[in-house]
Amino acid sequence: MACGEFDVIARYFNRHRTARRDVKQGIGDDCALLSVSEKQLIAISTDTLVSGIHFLPDIDPADLGYKSLAVNLSDLAAMGADPAWVSLALTLPEINEPWLARFSDSLFEQLDYYGMQLIGGDTTRGPLSITYTINGLVPAGRALLRSGARIGDWIYVTGTLGDSAAGLAILQDRLSVEDNEERNALIHRHLRPHPRVLQGQALRDLASSAIDISDGVVSDLGHILKASDCGANLYLDDLPMSASLTNNTTPEQALRWALSGGEDYELCFTVPELHRGALDVALGLLGADFTCIGQIAPAADGMRFWRGNVQVELDLQGFDHFGKD
Amino acid sequence: MACGEFDVIARYFNRHRTARRDVKQGIGDDCALLSVSEKQLIAISTDTLVSGIHFLPDIDPADLGYKSLAVNLSDLAAMGADPAWVSLALTLPEINEPWLARFSDSLFEQLDYYGMQLIGGDTTRGPLSITYTINGLVPAGRALLRSGARIGDWIYVTGTLGDSAAGLAILQDRLSVEDNEERNALIHRHLRPHPRVLQGQALRDLASSAIDISDGVVSDLGHILKASDCGANLYLDDLPMSASLTNNTTPEQALRWALSGGEDYELCFTVPELHRGALDVALGLLGADFTCIGQIAPAADGMRFWRGNVQVELDLQGFDHFGKD
Repeated sequence: MACGEFDVIARYFNRHRTARRDVKQGIGDDCALLSVSEKQLIAISTDTLVSGIHFLPDIDPADLGYKSLAVNLSDLAAMGADPAWVSLALTLPEINEPWLARFSDSLFEQLDYYGMQLIGGDTTRGPLSITYTINGLVPAGRALLRSGARIGDWIYVTGTLGDSAAGLAILQDRLSVEDNEERNALIHRHLRPHPRVLQGQALRDLASSAIDISDGVVSDLGHILKASDCGANLYLDDLPMSASLTNNTTPEQALRWALSGGEDYELCFTVPELHRGALDVALGLLGADFTCIGQIAPAADGMRFWRGNVQVELDLQGFDHFGKD
Repeated sequence: MACGEFDVIARYFNRHRTARRDVKQGIGDDCALLSVSEKQLIAISTDTLVSGIHFLPDIDPADLGYKSLAVNLSDLAAMGADPAWVSLALTLPEINEPWLARFSDSLFEQLDYYGMQLIGGDTTRGPLSITYTINGLVPAGRALLRSGARIGDWIYVTGTLGDSAAGLAILQDRLSVEDNEERNALIHRHLRPHPRVLQGQALRDLASSAIDISDGVVSDLGHILKASDCGANLYLDDLPMSASLTNNTTPEQALRWALSGGEDYELCFTVPELHRGALDVALGLLGADFTCIGQIAPAADGMRFWRGNVQVELDLQGFDHFGKD
């Protein structure tokens, strides 16, 4: 890792719990050195989380250490890539050792879980923010792209939608939930999203396109439609929502959060009719829920919403960091 | 690139001026996809620059676009790596289009110069900061490490030392330089450091160790000594300093800046006696100055400073972002 904070780095981040064979040089030189088989491509993604914008300033550093990496893992999941290495750029207003201990313990717990290695980064002084650049490996030619959806393909999502937005609303006192279990479940979905890494890998030869749901399914499916030059019919009655969500808010609010709440970090993907049987087996084996929510249509149709056989108009937009908060 | 600022990203950063054959998927999906030959290792480095800490808030965005990448290229240079791809995490307080235009023009000019491609990143709202994660390629087994210095090896630096610190002092009104040409030369060294990419590659089979000088030669050579378990004798009379520096400050101040001013982004490297002739040819061909400033010694000696045959004591320390400012 670069810069002058050598003691801090050594103490909290220069751990070698997972020592990967493809890491020829880890933390401790000007660069890390990595080897890659020619049969694999490297998948690279970068995400920044800024205090007050992407997380609440009083967030537990253990939750932050978890979520900041999970968000980035979700991008690898959407490509069907296997997580490998990560660089961490951590900007801190001050050195707070208990904070660093909780943050880094939580980070390394997750790195170990995925067999990943922290290979470097930078620690700097400034307003709190975290940038990960994550590297995964994917067999050449088998990565899931946004651009492969075709007319007639079925649109699926993993898990349930809208819980994370409800969890954030609870944390910000915009939603009150009496039942403790449901309250905690929603908050947990916001603070500890589960990146669908295994599902992404299982989808490699089955899905025609995929994306992770960071901004809400309308916005993220929109990227698939744009990249694939398609439209879509979405069946609102089929949107998977948790009882924790539907028990504690109006149907309108639940629908809005499910469609455009953001930060669910589930996968949205398209599957040709031919692969639906294989899909049921492949994802079923992983024990995760997945739901068909619509079908790819011609581009001229745009994105249409249906309740039963009735087309409905919705005014929704995805989360835009410059547009709203 | 992730996040919601799609228009901004498309307009300023989704340019394909350099289209590399090893970039299978660039900006526009959840991850970039890259291919690497098995004969090469990937060298990865991350650097963050925070407004007010690493650059002056009123810096010209063209200078910032240049320097932020140059600093990171310097890490690749120190490994002898060939620059390939870069991810940009840009946190902005607001969308300022003239600022973005100048910043990105300057960035792409340099990317084109090095045949690099911007493969992704993230744009977020928050206090201005810039994180690059840069990827280079280096033939397997030929990267320059910090750990290869041996007793008797000669210690070299490229270029001149201390100019960048003097340039910063001018910008902060701590140093006054009457001669316009000298003034501009020093400021230029601070705002537009020249990463020694070609020199690093030329050193691959000649240098036993290398590092780039970001924190001052004392601090950065110290990393070589620690990694190589060695000491060093440094000959202060031989430190390369520009006339622009020595004409405009006291010998004591010039020495301090040359040894610990930081941000010169020259290379410090060690060369076995056997390779000195080849070094003169290899670096001479590139037209860059390089100077022998000392010799590697046993670890027990620590770092010793000499004026002629007289050992002198110095109280110096490198730049530490948490330690001072």
